[in-house]
Amino acid sequence: MNDPYHLDKGPFLRDLVPGDRFIGNYVLRSKQLESFRDPARGNFLTLVLGDRSGQLIARVWENAEIAYEDVLEGEIIKLDGETESYLERTQIRIFRLRSAEPNEYDMRDMLPSSERDPEEMVKELKTFIDSIKDQHLLALVNNFFNDDEFFKLFIQAPAARRVHHAYLHGLLEHTLEILVLAQTTLQLYPQINADLLSAGILLHDIGKVREYSWELDINYTNEGRLLGHVVMANEMIAIALQSLPDFPEDLSLRLRHMLLSHHGRYEWGSPRRPKTLEAIALHHIENTSAQLNRFNALLSFRQPGKDWTEYDRLLRRQLYGSSEDELSIEESSQLS
Amino acid sequence: MNDPYHLDKGPFLRDLVPGDRFIGNYVLRSKQLESFRDPARGNFLTLVLGDRSGQLIARVWENAEIAYEDVLEGEIIKLDGETESYLERTQIRIFRLRSAEPNEYDMRDMLPSSERDPEEMVKELKTFIDSIKDQHLLALVNNFFNDDEFFKLFIQAPAARRVHHAYLHGLLEHTLEILVLAQTTLQLYPQINADLLSAGILLHDIGKVREYSWELDINYTNEGRLLGHVVMANEMIAIALQSLPDFPEDLSLRLRHMLLSHHGRYEWGSPRRPKTLEAIALHHIENTSAQLNRFNALLSFRQPGKDWTEYDRLLRRQLYGSSEDELSIEESSQLS
Amino acid sequence: MNDPYHLDKGPFLRDLVPGDRFIGNYVLRSKQLESFRDPARGNFLTLVLGDRSGQLIARVWENAEIAYEDVLEGEIIKLDGETESYLERTQIRIFRLRSAEPNEYDMRDMLPSSERDPEEMVKELKTFIDSIKDQHLLALVNNFFNDDEFFKLFIQAPAARRVHHAYLHGLLEHTLEILVLAQTTLQLYPQINADLLSAGILLHDIGKVREYSWELDINYTNEGRLLGHVVMANEMIAIALQSLPDFPEDLSLRLRHMLLSHHGRYEWGSPRRPKTLEAIALHHIENTSAQLNRFNALLSFRQPGKDWTEYDRLLRRQLYGSSEDELSIEESSQLS
Amino acid sequence: MNDPYHLDKGPFLRDLVPGDRFIGNYVLRSKQLESFRDPARGNFLTLVLGDRSGQLIARVWENAEIAYEDVLEGEIIKLDGETESYLERTQIRIFRLRSAEPNEYDMRDMLPSSERDPEEMVKELKTFIDSIKDQHLLALVNNFFNDDEFFKLFIQAPAARRVHHAYLHGLLEHTLEILVLAQTTLQLYPQINADLLSAGILLHDIGKVREYSWELDINYTNEGRLLGHVVMANEMIAIALQSLPDFPEDLSLRLRHMLLSHHGRYEWGSPRRPKTLEAIALHHIENTSAQLNRFNALLSFRQPGKDWTEYDRLLRRQLYGSSEDELSIEESSQLS
Amino acid sequence: MNDPYHLDKGPFLRDLVPGDRFIGNYVLRSKQLESFRDPARGNFLTLVLGDRSGQLIARVWENAEIAYEDVLEGEIIKLDGETESYLERTQIRIFRLRSAEPNEYDMRDMLPSSERDPEEMVKELKTFIDSIKDQHLLALVNNFFNDDEFFKLFIQAPAARRVHHAYLHGLLEHTLEILVLAQTTLQLYPQINADLLSAGILLHDIGKVREYSWELDINYTNEGRLLGHVVMANEMIAIALQSLPDFPEDLSLRLRHMLLSHHGRYEWGSPRRPKTLEAIALHHIENTSAQLNRFNALLSFRQPGKDWTEYDRLLRRQLYGSSEDELSIEESSQLS
Amino acid sequence: MNDPYHLDKGPFLRDLVPGDRFIGNYVLRSKQLESFRDPARGNFLTLVLGDRSGQLIARVWENAEIAYEDVLEGEIIKLDGETESYLERTQIRIFRLRSAEPNEYDMRDMLPSSERDPEEMVKELKTFIDSIKDQHLLALVNNFFNDDEFFKLFIQAPAARRVHHAYLHGLLEHTLEILVLAQTTLQLYPQINADLLSAGILLHDIGKVREYSWELDINYTNEGRLLGHVVMANEMIAIALQSLPDFPEDLSLRLRHMLLSHHGRYEWGSPRRPKTLEAIALHHIENTSAQLNRFNALLSFRQPGKDWTEYDRLLRRQLYGSSEDELSIEESSQLS
Repeated sequence: MNDPYHLDKGPFLRDLVPGDRFIGNYVLRSKQLESFRDPARGNFLTLVLGDRSGQLIARVWENAEIAYEDVLEGEIIKLDGETESYLERTQIRIFRLRSAEPNEYDMRDMLPSSERDPEEMVKELKTFIDSIKDQHLLALVNNFFNDDEFFKLFIQAPAARRVHHAYLHGLLEHTLEILVLAQTTLQLYPQINADLLSAGILLHDIGKVREYSWELDINYTNEGRLLGHVVMANEMIAIALQSLPDFPEDLSLRLRHMLLSHHGRYEWGSPRRPKTLEAIALHHIENTSAQLNRFNALLSFRQPGKDWTEYDRLLRRQLYGSSEDELSIEESSQLS
Repeated sequence: MNDPYHLDKGPFLRDLVPGDRFIGNYVLRSKQLESFRDPARGNFLTLVLGDRSGQLIARVWENAEIAYEDVLEGEIIKLDGETESYLERTQIRIFRLRSAEPNEYDMRDMLPSSERDPEEMVKELKTFIDSIKDQHLLALVNNFFNDDEFFKLFIQAPAARRVHHAYLHGLLEHTLEILVLAQTTLQLYPQINADLLSAGILLHDIGKVREYSWELDINYTNEGRLLGHVVMANEMIAIALQSLPDFPEDLSLRLRHMLLSHHGRYEWGSPRRPKTLEAIALHHIENTSAQLNRFNALLSFRQPGKDWTEYDRLLRRQLYGSSEDELSIEESSQLS
Repeated sequence: MNDPYHLDKGPFLRDLVPGDRFIGNYVLRSKQLESFRDPARGNFLTLVLGDRSGQLIARVWENAEIAYEDVLEGEIIKLDGETESYLERTQIRIFRLRSAEPNEYDMRDMLPSSERDPEEMVKELKTFIDSIKDQHLLALVNNFFNDDEFFKLFIQAPAARRVHHAYLHGLLEHTLEILVLAQTTLQLYPQINADLLSAGILLHDIGKVREYSWELDINYTNEGRLLGHVVMANEMIAIALQSLPDFPEDLSLRLRHMLLSHHGRYEWGSPRRPKTLEAIALHHIENTSAQLNRFNALLSFRQPGKDWTEYDRLLRRQLYGSSEDELSIEESSQLS
Repeated sequence: MNDPYHLDKGPFLRDLVPGDRFIGNYVLRSKQLESFRDPARGNFLTLVLGDRSGQLIARVWENAEIAYEDVLEGEIIKLDGETESYLERTQIRIFRLRSAEPNEYDMRDMLPSSERDPEEMVKELKTFIDSIKDQHLLALVNNFFNDDEFFKLFIQAPAARRVHHAYLHGLLEHTLEILVLAQTTLQLYPQINADLLSAGILLHDIGKVREYSWELDINYTNEGRLLGHVVMANEMIAIALQSLPDFPEDLSLRLRHMLLSHHGRYEWGSPRRPKTLEAIALHHIENTSAQLNRFNALLSFRQPGKDWTEYDRLLRRQLYGSSEDELSIEESSQLS
Repeated sequence: MNDPYHLDKGPFLRDLVPGDRFIGNYVLRSKQLESFRDPARGNFLTLVLGDRSGQLIARVWENAEIAYEDVLEGEIIKLDGETESYLERTQIRIFRLRSAEPNEYDMRDMLPSSERDPEEMVKELKTFIDSIKDQHLLALVNNFFNDDEFFKLFIQAPAARRVHHAYLHGLLEHTLEILVLAQTTLQLYPQINADLLSAGILLHDIGKVREYSWELDINYTNEGRLLGHVVMANEMIAIALQSLPDFPEDLSLRLRHMLLSHHGRYEWGSPRRPKTLEAIALHHIENTSAQLNRFNALLSFRQPGKDWTEYDRLLRRQLYGSSEDELSIEESSQLS
Repeated sequence: MNDPYHLDKGPFLRDLVPGDRFIGNYVLRSKQLESFRDPARGNFLTLVLGDRSGQLIARVWENAEIAYEDVLEGEIIKLDGETESYLERTQIRIFRLRSAEPNEYDMRDMLPSSERDPEEMVKELKTFIDSIKDQHLLALVNNFFNDDEFFKLFIQAPAARRVHHAYLHGLLEHTLEILVLAQTTLQLYPQINADLLSAGILLHDIGKVREYSWELDINYTNEGRLLGHVVMANEMIAIALQSLPDFPEDLSLRLRHMLLSHHGRYEWGSPRRPKTLEAIALHHIENTSAQLNRFNALLSFRQPGKDWTEYDRLLRRQLYGSSEDELSIEESSQLS
């Protein structure tokens, strides 16, 4: 990356191969002292390291207790280590480690992130917002997107923990993809209410800014697990509508119905099934964006030189890609 | 009925048998002029009549156009008629009909209604509310139940259109049944938070006051079909909580999680599945009340002298009752 | 319609209301003599009539035997009749009828048909075909679309018997819609092989030219019921590939996999589930086109002045539309 | 525990933390000699130990062959050991071990057991039995509960291997819970036949005394796996009814129908679905008892200080509890 | 039919076509007086008639009250009538009717019956029984088949109410078919215990002698609906085993497991799923017999000259047969 | 084995028990160098070995790098080793190893293979083919079975990768079993078209010769995963029919329908459900053969002396067998 502000974190975990000796910065996800089977040898230290390319296990075999004290779970650490193969998996043998200094890494390297530029995406989003002609819908949308605190979260948030757009700015990217697909859909079916569809797309996943946390890892919040983003989005809109007393009742029902039914089927956690043209449109183009992103991510993560991905437990199948050579994560970033 | 305020509406539709000549008052659900097959004979009039015991088809064979003009869909009509059998079904041949006067019927006879006294049920409900010790939960519950407009609707509302407690005051009766079951549950599992369970029960179905209309028939509102009472209840609480800024966040999550998961399974339209002790308790005792009421209603509606009910399409089975003689709906009301 | 070549068939069945006296031309789908209940009155004749707006029952009460002999099932008949209401349904009382002359009707009025102009659609389709750069895929696609016999059927065929694009030229219209959606999809996911996606779209439903017959009604052929269009398309391509010996094996697998998996799930009759990026793209954009068309059709067929459609048994729900007045089928044709 | 008859077994396995040095008595579930990777070092011994709080792996590193000979699988052993962490799990390093003497432990500490006093539960059960007024039902119930051999098993048996009340006396506790819930149900729905419901509850799970074995572990018997307790209970009653020739046929059908349908749905292994009021009541209150016990157990087993339990594979979710400190199993026993 | 003992009942209902004038004997399934729409005309009589070929509606237009008194529901009546078409269905206009004399019909013509000779089937069955070598299994089987009362019912009973072998002697025919299939299965898989498989087949559906009644119609008994034949068979065997104290426990478990799992899947009402070689064999060959019979019956009932059957709601499809001409039911009986 | 051509490969992997010292020949499925935890000790070598009885892990602790270079993945190696127990599993410690010479092993010992003699099976198959009287069907069948290249693959191919007949010649054995079952089926239901059923059986799984590869392991081909054998068989027949222009269209549809529906249900990957008598017959007897083979294989692989097999994840249950002693794989081969 040619970004002058982008600090060199060292190699990404996914690019390491057995035998590499390297220095790098990584998130320390957990640390634990374990005892050798031979009690005379005392303890060793097991760490789980992460960065935006994935995660690996690392061990400190010597002076483990001291190393244990030197670093904290949840911080970024700098280490000097070597990769090796153990029980058919790659792990890292650490020779030295310490807490990293803020100027030694770039937080953007630590969590996976959209390959698109966030600022450009924000510009594109604003164009879509500005194209809404219905003043009620525009006011409601702006109630959120003109709120700086909300908007900052919306820009950063991932769209999922694992399945699709599961990286920083993923929610923004996903929302934009649906807006783009919507234009073609409207061209084919002019019976669809364009402003209603746009507003529904912009608001359909806003609950995710509270469903996930994404400090050093993407995870569910308690609220996310107990309420779910579908219901939270409806609640956020219901509260916002309190300050828009002239908002037409029928428009409010149609809009909220879209959000509540956008998962499409009860068994996919949708409290309603689509019953309007705008709701069925949102469900299908949202799903198109999500599934393409999911397949694309799974295919790009398959082992170099392999046609087939690993078996995916949620899809219950392996996927098939082209047999062209894959680039390292660093190379592929440079391309985009 | 010995109630001095209770006007004599005439026989209930469910109690009529072929050959009865009678005078009575009924809701006119629809009217339609139809032409005889023999064009020389002109038109006849087909009416759909209802009261709280069910509905029947009626015909006016003579002077149908005049009769058609005399009455309005949606009003109560008084008629002189005779029941007869046609194509294996009972129908009514009408000799005379007119709009009924307000003092000729009691609205309570027109829609099915709980067999329990509403005032007694309200007293019992208030006792349960008063037993809540947690001041936050109590304030939230009272936010609704001290609101006269809401409370009036809550007292009248049915709990469903068809399946269970599908009659006036059904929501109140259903809520009380769950509160009673909750006491035993708490005795068995003191680990359950009693106040949270009570508040969750009281609020779990409040969305139904907006999901149904029950003027002359129980039906879904547009809002009910497009949003659903589960999500509406959550929304109503979220808005109410805005006026209770000190309400503990964790308590709010637990309470709303109960409402959102009380249908238990995604395929039953539940946006969440129960994840707390209070949520699983609410789901199961709510279901116990609903299913017992549903079975009891189906069994009480089976044909006199029959052990088995008709086939129920939702349950996909027939139910089996005792073979004791059934009472007419009027007699059974007198008993209770 | 201002088309000078368009003959006046008389009113469309869907536009008739009780009391209309009219002359018109319709497909005679079936005829049957039935006896009056009163044996002294002899027989009457029951006909099922159709045109592209729907179908209705008609009766000849007088001289039924003669009328029975005058017309043949499966031909177009001209009649003089009047609509009336019977058992809450509209039916036609026929005064006179005879076989229609070829110059008295336009076949395009008899079966429902796409509202788009077939010739324009063909032009658009050819542009998409011409944009395929891969010579193997282009040769395969042209193997079909340059075959006049196939192409004539492809242009006429419906895309379904009932669910979506269930009218003449529906297959062409559906294929075009997917091609248009594909352009946006490719813009979002350039990793998709554009030529493979285009070829897959063009060929995915070619089995439907043999799955359906559409003489005077859209129906399944025996082949359609016993084999199904998914498998037939694969078979047609396998045979075509025999004349293209240089077609790359991997490309052939990827292409046929797309067709075989485009229904997406086993329970939707798909012998494979999507395992490539092109296959998942085809599945989702194909479904988007199909479901939007289906919802749009159901909503446009709802009763005038009603917000909700009738209950749809396949979707297991009613749909919600805007409450604006609906146009007659003739008016709506004039708009397009 | 203040019970003078209760011998001190040493710490419970679930209360051990890395670094504890202790002496205790445990069930030896299995033993196996394994070879060190370095052949010069010979063998070590791996043991699986259990008590009523759970199970742990233990190792003997020195003189493993001698230790192997000293103890038998399936007996109680006494050991001197120390806990340590290995591959992120706790295991025990054993310094000394031998067979335990009968006076060194209390069998009740070895298998998990109800926290309620069995004698009190038996008294409560007898009160419920005595309240049955129908002489036929009473005779049938007593046919079982007056049979000492059966009754002894009934008192001891668990209600399940894992899911709910999966401990000694669990069947008794579960049966009592349902009887208590039934009282409230009867109060709400007096149409339920009280004696039939009581008898149905008392007998619904009697097949479990033969479905499970619970010597040193709760497990399925061959009969349990091949026939299942639902069918076995029906069979036991059918045989008992042979000695009660006057038992009314209809009552027998209703009672057995309750047992056969108490799992509620075919996919939950129920050969019938509830078709009577008593059957639907039994199904729902039985399920309430089972699910509350299951949730309560899962929540009480979550890691100290955690709000969320581990992911439960059968429920396919994590559960959420209060964040108050958890007590050790010994402390919580003292409370009850 | 050349059977000298076979009385001439008149035409079978399924063979009647509009315009036939005939005299015949039929089961009177129900009778009901209905009023003409024109009250001056009084009442007519509607009858439901049945014989082994199917059922039809019949009407008495003149002197209906007298006719109503002359015949009883559930008896065989003799009538003089004529078939006519009404609302696209065939019905019978009756001119004269009276109770039939016992010597005017053969009961075997009234309910559908196996086309195979019962006595031959009994002989074949006995050969299979005699081939069982294991004395325990033989004793158990004979416990039933040597019991005259049981055996008489077993020979007569249908195997189902509708789906397969739904006619007199159907259970016997179905059992024999499975025994025949079993011989081939044993030849392929000699690991199967032949005696156990034979005994399991002979006993697997014995509960059906109590699950169905087949007086003038095949119907469920109360016991059949509340317990089901799967569980009843197990119960009958459990009771029989009480008189065979030496019967090996393991053999008993294996045998009863076969019966309990022979429906194969929980959702098909099977309380167990097959876990032994004999159980999986029984499940599959039983299903082969049932499904072939079901398909064969549906195909033989399709309309003359049609390739496709009517839509079958349980199979959710139409079936496809050969287009050769179908014989009347009388002709096809003569062939067999 | 007394086969003079059968070379002695050494013990089968499944027969090895801890402590065995042996020399034998095995497929080398994979090899990997791993580092000791103690870096001073360098690397060891981990191998995965296979033969027709199963697979095991093996280690070379000394001079691992040299051993690594000496052998190739995918070849047969000869080794001198000893079995030992590690983490409750058996593994092999290798002392010496090298590539095996072709005359040191018999390829038939390396992959599991049918216990029946392939030549005898081929003879039996030809008899079935010769019994087809319909010249069209016979020509089509011979189009395949007279093609030497096809026939050689058909004889060798397994019928599945894991579930049933998952060994060399399994497809041939499975096809024969169905043909044998078909004879009995035809005897019971002579309405079935015998030639059509035979041809359908012979051709139903021919796609498997391209769906699987079985060099040193049974695996899916890319074509198998992307198209599936059901569709491939249809395609192969469609192409073959091009050279048989007189083949009757209706016969072709019926035959291909059988193949396309032989999995029976959409959710089992069947693009059609059976709609003809021959199709339902094929589905059920095919399934009988497959499930009996599957159960038999699982039961024969259970641990010696155990009644119950391990839990099978696809069947989601354990199976129950007889408790007689099991033979080693070598002994059981000698018996057959």
